[in-house]
Amino acid sequence: MNACILAVGSEMLTPFRVDTNSLIITERLNQLGYDVRLKAVAADHVDELARLLEGALTWAEVIIVTGGLGPTEDDITREAVARVLHLPLDIDETIVDRIRERFVRRGLTMPEINRRQGMVPRGATVLANPNGTAPGLWLEHGRTAIVLLPGPPREMTPMLDAVVRDRLAPRAGGGGLFRRVLKITGRTESDVDAAAAPVYSKWSEAAPPISTTILAALGQIELHLTVKAANAAEADAALDVAQRELEAVLGIAIYSSDGRPLEAVVGHLLRDRSMTIAVAESCSGGLLASRLTDVPGSSEYVERGVVCYSNRSKTELAGVPAALIAEHGAVSEPVAEAMAIGIRDRAGANVGVGITGIAGPGGGTPDKPVGTVAIAVAVGEAVRVRTFQFLGPRDMVKFQSAQAAMNMLRLLLLKQDAPFWPAKAS
Amino acid sequence: MNACILAVGSEMLTPFRVDTNSLIITERLNQLGYDVRLKAVAADHVDELARLLEGALTWAEVIIVTGGLGPTEDDITREAVARVLHLPLDIDETIVDRIRERFVRRGLTMPEINRRQGMVPRGATVLANPNGTAPGLWLEHGRTAIVLLPGPPREMTPMLDAVVRDRLAPRAGGGGLFRRVLKITGRTESDVDAAAAPVYSKWSEAAPPISTTILAALGQIELHLTVKAANAAEADAALDVAQRELEAVLGIAIYSSDGRPLEAVVGHLLRDRSMTIAVAESCSGGLLASRLTDVPGSSEYVERGVVCYSNRSKTELAGVPAALIAEHGAVSEPVAEAMAIGIRDRAGANVGVGITGIAGPGGGTPDKPVGTVAIAVAVGEAVRVRTFQFLGPRDMVKFQSAQAAMNMLRLLLLKQDAPFWPAKAS
Repeated sequence: MNACILAVGSEMLTPFRVDTNSLIITERLNQLGYDVRLKAVAADHVDELARLLEGALTWAEVIIVTGGLGPTEDDITREAVARVLHLPLDIDETIVDRIRERFVRRGLTMPEINRRQGMVPRGATVLANPNGTAPGLWLEHGRTAIVLLPGPPREMTPMLDAVVRDRLAPRAGGGGLFRRVLKITGRTESDVDAAAAPVYSKWSEAAPPISTTILAALGQIELHLTVKAANAAEADAALDVAQRELEAVLGIAIYSSDGRPLEAVVGHLLRDRSMTIAVAESCSGGLLASRLTDVPGSSEYVERGVVCYSNRSKTELAGVPAALIAEHGAVSEPVAEAMAIGIRDRAGANVGVGITGIAGPGGGTPDKPVGTVAIAVAVGEAVRVRTFQFLGPRDMVKFQSAQAAMNMLRLLLLKQDAPFWPAKAS
Repeated sequence: MNACILAVGSEMLTPFRVDTNSLIITERLNQLGYDVRLKAVAADHVDELARLLEGALTWAEVIIVTGGLGPTEDDITREAVARVLHLPLDIDETIVDRIRERFVRRGLTMPEINRRQGMVPRGATVLANPNGTAPGLWLEHGRTAIVLLPGPPREMTPMLDAVVRDRLAPRAGGGGLFRRVLKITGRTESDVDAAAAPVYSKWSEAAPPISTTILAALGQIELHLTVKAANAAEADAALDVAQRELEAVLGIAIYSSDGRPLEAVVGHLLRDRSMTIAVAESCSGGLLASRLTDVPGSSEYVERGVVCYSNRSKTELAGVPAALIAEHGAVSEPVAEAMAIGIRDRAGANVGVGITGIAGPGGGTPDKPVGTVAIAVAVGEAVRVRTFQFLGPRDMVKFQSAQAAMNMLRLLLLKQDAPFWPAKAS
C-alpha cells in the first residue's frame, strides 16, 4: 500500500525550516504497513497543491496533507482538495460555533476571518482538533483516503493518532513495521556501535528480520530497532529478545526503551524511592530544574531549585562558603559539592545536585576553557563529583550539563558501578 | 522566477531522515531571485520522479534534482529525465574513463555496473564532480533549466556553487530575494492578521513587490517579508518602509526585526539600563531563568533565579509571607507580586519577576483551572501583575508563562501603555 505526504506552507520552502511532521506521519504509516513513496512541500498556491493531489490520486492509497487549514487567504488546502475532487465548499456552522467558543473561553471575540475554517468540501468527515481552531478533514475518493490535518505539530500529532486508530488501521488490515527505541547516554556513538554491531548485525538474517539504525543526538544515542510483523504481540516478542541481547552488552547505559526522556526516568526513580530533590545551578542556568519540572507530577519530588550565577548568590542560596570559592574558584569540584550538599540540606530534600561551569562564549581560561563543568550529586552519605569538558556553543553546554547531572544521579540511585558520562572508549 | 527542488532516495522517506540539501539549494536560489514553490522527496521509482518532472516543467524556470545518480538499478534519475524530455540515453565514454581512473587511483578496478554513471541524456552538459564518481548534468528544455546533482552533501554543494556561478547567475540577470522577519508577541494570529493585512496586501502591487507570510508559533507570531531587489541596499530601503508601515499598526507588539529571540531583546534592554534581574518561578519551573541565561553575556544581568515549587520554598527563597499564601492561595496575584518584590529585594537586583500557576495536568480546580498563571514584574516602584489563562499541555503552559513574563517586563521597561499579552482582540 502506497502513501503520499504533502505539507503546505511557504515558510517550509525557505532556507530556515524543514517539514518535520512528515517524520511522525511516516512512522505511523509504516506501522500500518504503508510505504511512503513521495513527500512534498508546496507553496501556498492552490495550483501546485492541486497538481500534487491529482498525481498522488493515481497511485496512493492514502494521502496526508498537513497545513494550510488556518483562517487566512494563504490557507488554501480546503480549496485545492475541493477543486481536485470536484466538490463544493460548504460552511459548517457547527465548526464555526466551536471555534467561536474557543475564543470566548480565552476572553476573546472570534474574528470574522475565522469563519473560513468552517469551510468543508461536501461529504467530508470533520476531525476534532482538541488543541486548536483548525478542524481536520477526512475524505475518500475511489480507493484513496485523503486526510487533512493542521500544520502545528502539537495539533497535528494527536489528530493523526486518532485517525490512525479509528480510520486507517481498520483499512490497513493488520501487520506492519514495529519499532523500539533504546535510549543511551554516557557513551559515544562509536563506542555504542562497537559494542552493539556484533549483536545487531546477525538480526537481518533472523526470522523475523530486525533492522537497526543508530542515531546520535546531543548527549544521547538512540538505537532504533524495526521489525516487520503480523501484529504487535509478534513484534514485541522479537523486540524483547533483541533488547535483552543489547542490554547484555550495553547494560545500564540504556536508560529508556519506552520513549521516556531522561528527566522522566530520573523522576520515576525519585518517586519510587519517595525522595525529593533540590538543585543548585550556575552555568546550566535553570535548565536542569526546567527539564525536571517538564515531567507531569514532578511537583511531588522537586522541592526547589536555585540559579546562582553570582558568587554572592552561591553563598546566599546554597550556603557555599565564600572562602571555598576564593580558594578553588567558582568552577571547581569542591564548590559543586558544596552547592549540592548546601541546597539539599537547606531544602530538607533527600537529593542535592550542584552544577558550576563555563557555558561560554566568554569566561574561559587556559586552565578552565569554555565547556568546563563541575557536577556533584549528593544522596544521603553518597556524594559523586566529576569535571566534564563539553564541546559546542552555550546552549549545547547547558544541555549536556543537565544531561550529565541527571545521568550521574540515575546511576547513583541505581547503585551501580557503571562509568559516568561520557565514558572513556573501551 | 520559480524553482522546484526534487530529492530522489527512499532513505529520505523513512522516519529518521530529512532532506537537508534543499535548504542549501533554496538559499542559493533565493539569492538569485528564484522563488522555490515546490520541493519533494521521491522514492527510487522512475514513474514518480517522471510525474514530478512533468508537473514542474509546466511552471518552473529551474528544476534541481539531487540523488539517484549512483551506479545501481535504484538510481533512476537519468532514466526519468530522459523519458520526460524524450531523449535517448547515450553512454559517454569520457565519463566512464574518468570514473575508471578514479578507481585506479585508489588501487581498485571499476565494477562494470559503474558504466551506468556514464549514461547521459543526449544533448546534456556534463558537470564535473571533484568529490565523487557521479557527474552532474545540465539540460535545458524550453525556458526551464534542469540540473542533476549527486545526493551526498559534500559532493552536491561544490557542484551547486559552480553551477550557480557559471550557469544560473548569468540567466538570473542579477538581483534576488531578500527577507526580513518581524517577531510579535502579545497578540493572536488573527488579531495580527486583521491589523496587518490592510497594510501588506497593498505591497504585492508595489514596486518592488513585497510578499508577506504570517507564521504562528507558540506565544509568538512572525511576519516574513520578502522582496525581490537588485541588491541589498535596494531591498533594505523597501523593507524599511514596509516595517515602518507595520509598526504604525502593530506598534510595540513587534519586539524584534533582526532575528533576536525575546530573551535577547529583554536582555539587551536590561543591559542598556545597567539593570540586574532576579526571578522567582513556581509553575514555569526554571524555564524563564534558563531562557534568560541562553543569551551570551547574560551573567552580566541575571543575578539569580529560584524555583520555588513548594509553599515553604516560596517563603524561604522569595520571602513570601506564609499568611499571604494561606489567605489568597499559592496561585494568586498577591503571591506573584510578593515573589517578584521578595526575590528582587533579597538579590539586591533592579528587576524582580514572580510566576505562580498551575502547569497541569493535575492541580486544576473549577476556580483555577490548569493553565491559570499569575505573573508579576517589579521595576523600582512600578509593579505590574496579571493573571493569564494559557491553553495546552504542561510544557506549553511553561513556555507561555516565560514568554508572557518577558513581554510584561519588556513593555514595562519601554514604559509603554500597550496591552499585555494576550491582548483582547480589537
